[in-house]
Order: sequence, then structure tokens, then C-alpha cells
Amino acid sequence: MIITNSLDEVKKREKALSIIKDIVENKGREFLFDLTGLSGGFIASPSDLSLLETYVGPAIFEEALQEVGIEHMGGEKVLPLNRTSSGILATILALVEEDTNVVHYLAQLPAHPSIPRSCKLVGANYFETDVFEEFSIPDNTSLVVITGSTMDLKVIDEDEFRRVIEMAHEKGIPVMVDDASGARLRTVVFNQARACDLGADIAITSTDKLMPGPRGGLMAGRKELIDEIKVKVNQFGLEAQPPAVLAMLNGIKNFNGDNLVKSFERKDEFFDMLNEKFSNFEKTPNGVLISPEGLADEIGVDHNLSDDDLAFVLSFILLKDHGIITIPAVGMPGASATIRFDLSTNDAFNLDLNDLSEKLESSFNKLLNV
Amino acid sequence: MIITNSLDEVKKREKALSIIKDIVENKGREFLFDLTGLSGGFIASPSDLSLLETYVGPAIFEEALQEVGIEHMGGEKVLPLNRTSSGILATILALVEEDTNVVHYLAQLPAHPSIPRSCKLVGANYFETDVFEEFSIPDNTSLVVITGSTMDLKVIDEDEFRRVIEMAHEKGIPVMVDDASGARLRTVVFNQARACDLGADIAITSTDKLMPGPRGGLMAGRKELIDEIKVKVNQFGLEAQPPAVLAMLNGIKNFNGDNLVKSFERKDEFFDMLNEKFSNFEKTPNGVLISPEGLADEIGVDHNLSDDDLAFVLSFILLKDHGIITIPAVGMPGASATIRFDLSTNDAFNLDLNDLSEKLESSFNKLLNV
Repeated sequence: MIITNSLDEVKKREKALSIIKDIVENKGREFLFDLTGLSGGFIASPSDLSLLETYVGPAIFEEALQEVGIEHMGGEKVLPLNRTSSGILATILALVEEDTNVVHYLAQLPAHPSIPRSCKLVGANYFETDVFEEFSIPDNTSLVVITGSTMDLKVIDEDEFRRVIEMAHEKGIPVMVDDASGARLRTVVFNQARACDLGADIAITSTDKLMPGPRGGLMAGRKELIDEIKVKVNQFGLEAQPPAVLAMLNGIKNFNGDNLVKSFERKDEFFDMLNEKFSNFEKTPNGVLISPEGLADEIGVDHNLSDDDLAFVLSFILLKDHGIITIPAVGMPGASATIRFDLSTNDAFNLDLNDLSEKLESSFNKLLNV
Repeated sequence: MIITNSLDEVKKREKALSIIKDIVENKGREFLFDLTGLSGGFIASPSDLSLLETYVGPAIFEEALQEVGIEHMGGEKVLPLNRTSSGILATILALVEEDTNVVHYLAQLPAHPSIPRSCKLVGANYFETDVFEEFSIPDNTSLVVITGSTMDLKVIDEDEFRRVIEMAHEKGIPVMVDDASGARLRTVVFNQARACDLGADIAITSTDKLMPGPRGGLMAGRKELIDEIKVKVNQFGLEAQPPAVLAMLNGIKNFNGDNLVKSFERKDEFFDMLNEKFSNFEKTPNGVLISPEGLADEIGVDHNLSDDDLAFVLSFILLKDHGIITIPAVGMPGASATIRFDLSTNDAFNLDLNDLSEKLESSFNKLLNV
């Protein structure tokens, strides 16, 4: 075993970081292909950055975000947040009283933990279901929650979406939509309407999910509610800070729906290509992966490495020889050793799939020779 | 009256922003002097920014921040937060149970509102006092809070600081220090020890106060408690995001204690200079100000402008002729028309006080001719 404890993992990660630093400094950023799907984005021009430093920059970006954000999300007003979880917390702090009920409908359990957690904090009763027929709104409900698409990218049925909103509004209860990835996945890939257009009072999306934006949340909805929630946001320090607001603005501007649709098609194409040479790759919603066990199965020669070690070595070959960043090389201690290729990242669109497949094959052959 | 409503204020601000943009684009950032004291900082090199975009940048900055942050704050570990208020919330969520007591000693009331507000959220009883003799720790207390220096920069007595910590530790109760500005003001200007060195279990500072960092909070303290608080921070989305972490790192590295000491001396020097020519300037802890009424009193000629309008016009002359940014020109609707010159900002140290005084006099004379 090469990697036996957390300290080894830290050292492994430091080694990967130094390779990346070397590529950035000696070859250039364009020779790195971040396929982790975890990087977020921080697009900023030199003039943006000069402004960021002054009193006025933030104000300019926040104003510009109103226009661009409303176009992306619908609604009357947007509010940039430090995280989607902070937006959910603020909404529940603003709208949910102690001992009231919060009910949540989603396509597949479990819900994002920030929702039940925030309810617990204010002392509300929380109920969730992924069976539409079992969904109902009891008396004394203060908030109805809908998840647009789950953490595993399972998308809600649009008719059920509309129906839940109708049920809530018949009782005069506001609806918050957790549309973290859904704001793009539902609308662009599944041709559904924006949550606010379906009648949601509040919708929140994650600006780093399926778009080249920073880790952060963007809330949209009815102006009166947003203003009420914004008070809690400012009181508890939940708002996005100026650099994040700038990056959100540029992330949305650079969001390309065609690319997203293409990544869903490309993963099939890429999977088929890999299947001609390998037998252990699996599909993810927007890419492919090979598990350490799958990789071990793929290897036909004798070796004395653990399954995880095999994945670490392959991940390092991909990085060093081809500038391809995957999680096993750069992950924090305890991160999965599964090698995932996320095809919806910005860098993924700069890669030709045949080329990527060849790079992968050459890295695999190098692994056999190690 | 030139400015009669919020729409006028918005237009005024837009005009100021376009002047600033023009200066940045045609002359350069170095011709702008932001003396608002509200700008925060975002220092980042091109190579920092390339890294920011990749998965690894954030990890590099967070690691580097451990070293630099501990040097600045003391303690065993640091944790970067979206705001000081978010750090206070997280600490109280982690350490304070419902129905327990939280007691707070500070040099002058009122406390920062995030402290009582977070206590209320968890259902704790909150007590505060600025009379040391009246401070005591009742039974069933879960947290003792100390404010290092207040929002008006009033600094706690170091002996009282130590004594409160002793009282808490005698009962085995953890101590959180709100050292928003105090982490620099107390240590550098008043020669006090760092909060963690005085025995605080947790200390939090604001990285945009009296240093060229971004709006954000930096928590330091005992590793075991920080790890416990970090769980709440991550659950509710309270952590600083990568661009802020980068700017914190560079803000601390660029913090110059001598400059801070100098700004406290310089404001006296500047005040004396201005007093030779004007009679309505007043001192602030780290600069000088002139109120709209003071300005009106200063004017010896007939005019038909309101007091606020006079301040707006002077603020615009300062900006347009000399690149000096003050709040009346760039403030959001409703911001004060008082012209403040904050001498602790980074830009202030690039200004010669005689030169600044002459620029001010020339702007004032121009105002008389308008």
C-alpha cells in the first residue's frame, strides 16, 4: 500500500498541488483540465478586479446581478447568498415559526440536510416524501418546500411541481423551491419552466452547479418576501460577498445551455468510446466514472497495490502527463478514490472526446507498466 | 435643492461611479484614493487568480491561511468565515444550549447585535454590562463573551479582560472574544496581548476592519472547539468562500501595524492642519470628518443649496479633481452626507497630509465659486 493514512493523503495532495502549480506557472492554465466538477468558477477581468477593490465595485456588480439573475431565475428580485444552505436557513428563519409545520416534496429521498436542520433550529415540525400520492399539507403549515432536482440529479415531474404549488397557494402558504441544480437541469435539459414562472414564491439555485460560477447561492422570487428574508441574511452574515457576486454575474453570463445539453449527450458518446476498450466504466448523470474495484478488475497483470492505490496512481498519471485533474489526486483526506470525469465543467468543453479517450488509454497503459 | 429623493441619490451615485470608472480606465487605480473606510480589500495577483479557478486554489489558500492567521490571532487553529456575525452565530449554535445563560462584558454598551440575536435564536438568556464591578457569571452559564474593542473603537482594559477570562475558566466555561477591530487596535495601538494569548478559547476578528482585507471573519482558538464550531459553519453555509480566503491571506500579509499606529497619530496631525484653515472639522478614532451643518457654517458666501447638497457638491469636487472617494458621492441612497476621511485605509497611506490638506482647501475654494 502506498497510501495508508491521512498523513499520506495530505502528502499525496500536496504533491498533486505542486504538479498543478508547475503546469499553471510553466505551461499555462489552458494546459489544465479540471474534470472534478467541484471547482466552481471565478471568472473576472482585470478591470472587474480593479473595481472590486474600491467602494463602488460591489455596488456595480450587485446591480448588474439583478438584471442577469432575474433573467436566469425569473421572479421580481434576486439575492446573492454565501451558500444555497445559507439561503435555506434565512428563508426558514424569516418565514417559519416555532411549532408550525414544514412539508417537502421531492422526486427522491433524501432531501438536502440543510432543510430539516434549519427547521429543527427554529423548532418547526418537518415532513418529507417522494411519493406524490402521499403528499398533503396539514393545518398550521408555514412553508411548503419543493426540490427541483435532487443531489443525484433526479428531476421532479413538472405536473406534480405545479400541483404542489397550487395546493400550497390554495391554503395561502408560501412555496420555497430548492433548485440547486434544477434551475438549469430542469429548464435546459428537461424543458421545464423556471420555478418562479411555475408560481414558486422563493427559488434558490447553487451558482457552482452545472454552471461556471462560484460556490454560492442565488435566491429569486417575490420582492416582498426577498426583502423580508434579506433582513435575516444581513443580520446573520449569510449574504454573498463582493468577489462571489462578481463571479456569479460572470458565471451566469458564461452559462451555456447548449453545453449542458451537450454534456448529457457527450457522456453517452464518451461511455460508448470507453466501452470499446474498457469494461468497468459507469455512467453518471453528466459524465463517467471508474471505481477502484472496477479499475482493479480492469488490470490484467500482477501487482502489489491496493485498489485505492491503483486509482491514486492513475489519477497522478492523468495529471502529470495530460493536465487532467480528478478527485483522487487532489481530494482532501478521506475523499473517494473513484475516478470521475465530469463532462459538464468548463474545461471539459475544451477537450475532444477522442483525444480524452486516448489520453486515458495511454495513462492506463502507463499504469500497467508501473 | 439638488438632491431631493432616492432617485436623485441613485443618479448621483451613478454619476460618481462613472467618474471612478473613468479614472480607473484612463489614468489608473493609483489615481484613486478611497478614504471611505468601507471598501474592504481584494488583493490578488494574476497567478493567485489562475489558481482560484481550479479545484486546488482554495485548498492552497486555506492551508496558507492557517500559518498566517495563527500568527495574527494566536490560538491553535483558524477558521475563515463569511462574516464576523456568521462566526458568532456558529459559535453560539455549537456551544450554547436552550435556557442556559450567556454573559457579556464590554467597554461600552451597546454590544454588536449579532450576539443577543444569536442567543435569542437558540433560546438562551443573554446579559450584558459595561460596568466591570457589576459583571458576574451566574449558574448555568454556557458561554462568556468579551468584546475587545467596540464598534466605536472603545478598547477594554487588559486587566479586566484577563480577570473575566479567569472568572469564566474557574467555572469551566468557554470564553468567546468579539475582537472585530480589537485584534489589531488592542494589540498594535494599545500594546495588549492577543485574545488567545490572554486565554480566550475562541476569538473572532473582521478582516476588513483596520486592515486591507475583504469583508469577512477570521476565527482562531482551541482546535477542539474550532472543529466543533466548523461543523455548524459547514452545515449552515457560514464559511468564507475561496476568493475571500485568498483576500484574507493577502490582507493579513499586507497588514502594516506601523501604518495603523501612524493613522492614529496622523489624524491628530491632519486635524491640526485643517484647524488652521477651517473651524468645523471633528476627529474620529482614525480620521476626521465635517458634517453638512459644519460645512454650511464654514461657507461665508450666499448660496441657495441645502447643507446636504453642499456636502454632495464638495464630495464630487474631491472625486473629480483629485480622485478622492468619500461616502457622500458614492453612498447608497440614505447614506450620511457627512464627509469622512478615514486615514487608516491603504490609499490614505499613499497620500501626503499637506498635499491632502491643499487638495481639500482647493476643493473648498472651488465650492465657494460654484
